[in-house]
Amino acid sequence: MRDPIETVKPAVRAISAYSLLPHRASIKINQNENPFDMPDEIKTEVTKRLASRPWSRYPDFVASDLLEQLAAFAGWIPDGTLAGNGSNEMIQAALAVLVGPGVKVVIPEPTFTLYRQIATIFGAEVISVPLTGRLSFDIPALIDNASRLHAGVLILCSPNNPTGCRIEDQDLINIANAFDGIVIVDEAYHEFSGNSVVKLLKELPNLIVLRTFSKAMAMAGLRVGYLLASPALAREVHKATLPYNLNFVSSTVARVACERYETNLRPLVQEIIAERERLMASISQISGLDPVPSHANFFLVKSALKPQKLFEELLDRDILVRNVSHYPMLGDCLRLSVGTPQENDEVVLALQDIISRAGA
Amino acid sequence: MRDPIETVKPAVRAISAYSLLPHRASIKINQNENPFDMPDEIKTEVTKRLASRPWSRYPDFVASDLLEQLAAFAGWIPDGTLAGNGSNEMIQAALAVLVGPGVKVVIPEPTFTLYRQIATIFGAEVISVPLTGRLSFDIPALIDNASRLHAGVLILCSPNNPTGCRIEDQDLINIANAFDGIVIVDEAYHEFSGNSVVKLLKELPNLIVLRTFSKAMAMAGLRVGYLLASPALAREVHKATLPYNLNFVSSTVARVACERYETNLRPLVQEIIAERERLMASISQISGLDPVPSHANFFLVKSALKPQKLFEELLDRDILVRNVSHYPMLGDCLRLSVGTPQENDEVVLALQDIISRAGA
Repeated sequence: MRDPIETVKPAVRAISAYSLLPHRASIKINQNENPFDMPDEIKTEVTKRLASRPWSRYPDFVASDLLEQLAAFAGWIPDGTLAGNGSNEMIQAALAVLVGPGVKVVIPEPTFTLYRQIATIFGAEVISVPLTGRLSFDIPALIDNASRLHAGVLILCSPNNPTGCRIEDQDLINIANAFDGIVIVDEAYHEFSGNSVVKLLKELPNLIVLRTFSKAMAMAGLRVGYLLASPALAREVHKATLPYNLNFVSSTVARVACERYETNLRPLVQEIIAERERLMASISQISGLDPVPSHANFFLVKSALKPQKLFEELLDRDILVRNVSHYPMLGDCLRLSVGTPQENDEVVLALQDIISRAGA
Repeated sequence: MRDPIETVKPAVRAISAYSLLPHRASIKINQNENPFDMPDEIKTEVTKRLASRPWSRYPDFVASDLLEQLAAFAGWIPDGTLAGNGSNEMIQAALAVLVGPGVKVVIPEPTFTLYRQIATIFGAEVISVPLTGRLSFDIPALIDNASRLHAGVLILCSPNNPTGCRIEDQDLINIANAFDGIVIVDEAYHEFSGNSVVKLLKELPNLIVLRTFSKAMAMAGLRVGYLLASPALAREVHKATLPYNLNFVSSTVARVACERYETNLRPLVQEIIAERERLMASISQISGLDPVPSHANFFLVKSALKPQKLFEELLDRDILVRNVSHYPMLGDCLRLSVGTPQENDEVVLALQDIISRAGA
């Protein structure tokens, strides 16, 4: 009998699983989470709404109320809105219906590693377009690759994880008009950037926008994401989303979070943006450390000290950051999420201490 | 510019989304849910454990504690266990790594429609093997098709939805040994059948078993499923599961449900099995209605009255069942889930009333 593993597709066997080392620390700024927990006002309202709902019953087959609410929240139409178990599921569903063997997927790199992972599993060929030397999108190269290679899909994370660069509206319009495939813009961090490309959905029928509740909305533990596109495209992607993909608890929390965003969540987002600027300014004062401008709730720090060494020294001080130095172009970088004001103060003190000792 | 929909894979454009009409009724026996809600003992314990967990933080990257617990609960090893957002996600992940264009997927039909849907989206060719005239698995035909056509995957739902038939251990061994591909057994309803094929995982390295918390475990609203296979196979399927696919609430409920299964859930399962037999016996007394023996928490009823008519008459009486008469071989059938004793009494009274009026 043949080894059962030989039934697994060769492209899958050739890759590793997406992974993350399970370090722990009191100050956890390695996953771009909202450092403030979900506000109590929202938790209380959720608890009230959940009380009478039986656990043994499936969620609604079509969550029309949720989709209407998400559409209104994002400024789009319910017919062009899908929701699921984190934006990861939305990426997966979109790629499932769009790509297979022989299809080319263009991504700038470095970026969120899951795009390459999923596209590869589905048999697509991934075309990597390096960021510019300033770690921003290389628009002419993206346009050239997408059009010349007849790409099926081009994926942009904006603001980009892990660099924090952002796509400008006119650049996106030029990219979307330059080739016949689909442009997916993952707006996981858009609340921290002051811009969204949702307004372009009307004029760009080949645009798909992804959103998540895991960052600004303080719901990483609950897994909710959504997708915005033309109704025709959304209908096709819907075929690859799983029935009942969103559990009733997460769906209820998402609804309350939308309703109370202006009152209870936006102020936290504003504070995170202000803290990002304050933290970057403080770090830029430390010799040998150079923060990279960012539109997200995280930023890269270029370090004269070896990133792995800096990572370990921070971990020794109970601070967990992301070592991204194995990414292309980021050999001298760590990624820091913005924490609470107190956490950020401690991070600055720790970095000052590490650098001063290293210099001694 | 080309219509963006043309980028969607032709096999996807050709199919419809999985769908379910959104009827509502007081007695809801159309989705094979547990008619008893999650017991209060479990709800209370869950609430206690969730209190201090921040919502804004991601679930553990690898949920080792949960996987160990699921493995112990099912009688398998943690290295061969994966968990996710319902067993649907596990089916999807398994097929994502196993099938693509050119791969044949053998399924008995009628069965759960999602297998065909997902395999088709991934570009596989679905080979349908009809059940026997007695609505049980046609083992020789399954073996013949899997071996002769060099199938990549064969999927069995056991007990089978919507017919309730079950695969016997020796038949599964014969199937698994007859071809070089992978056999997936979806055990969504195994608790009601008195058998599980998990014990065969050791001798069948090409076997994957799927389990769900949506039926016996009374957690359809919370979406938890898991997969059991050899560590080598599980490692490959893991590459297609999404990071953080299981939210912290559902994962906590699953853990408490495992811990308290014997005390709080198994008695409900026993009651559902007893009610199934009682309900089927009562319905078999009604002229023109013929229940089909079942190992699940649902069963088919062959009806001399047109199924759509019977469905509507029941809905008029506030009882929602599943009309499965559009499935192959089931032109005269409805599917009924087993309800609470009181619900089942009302179903029998309603059926008696409908049939007596139809005969008058």
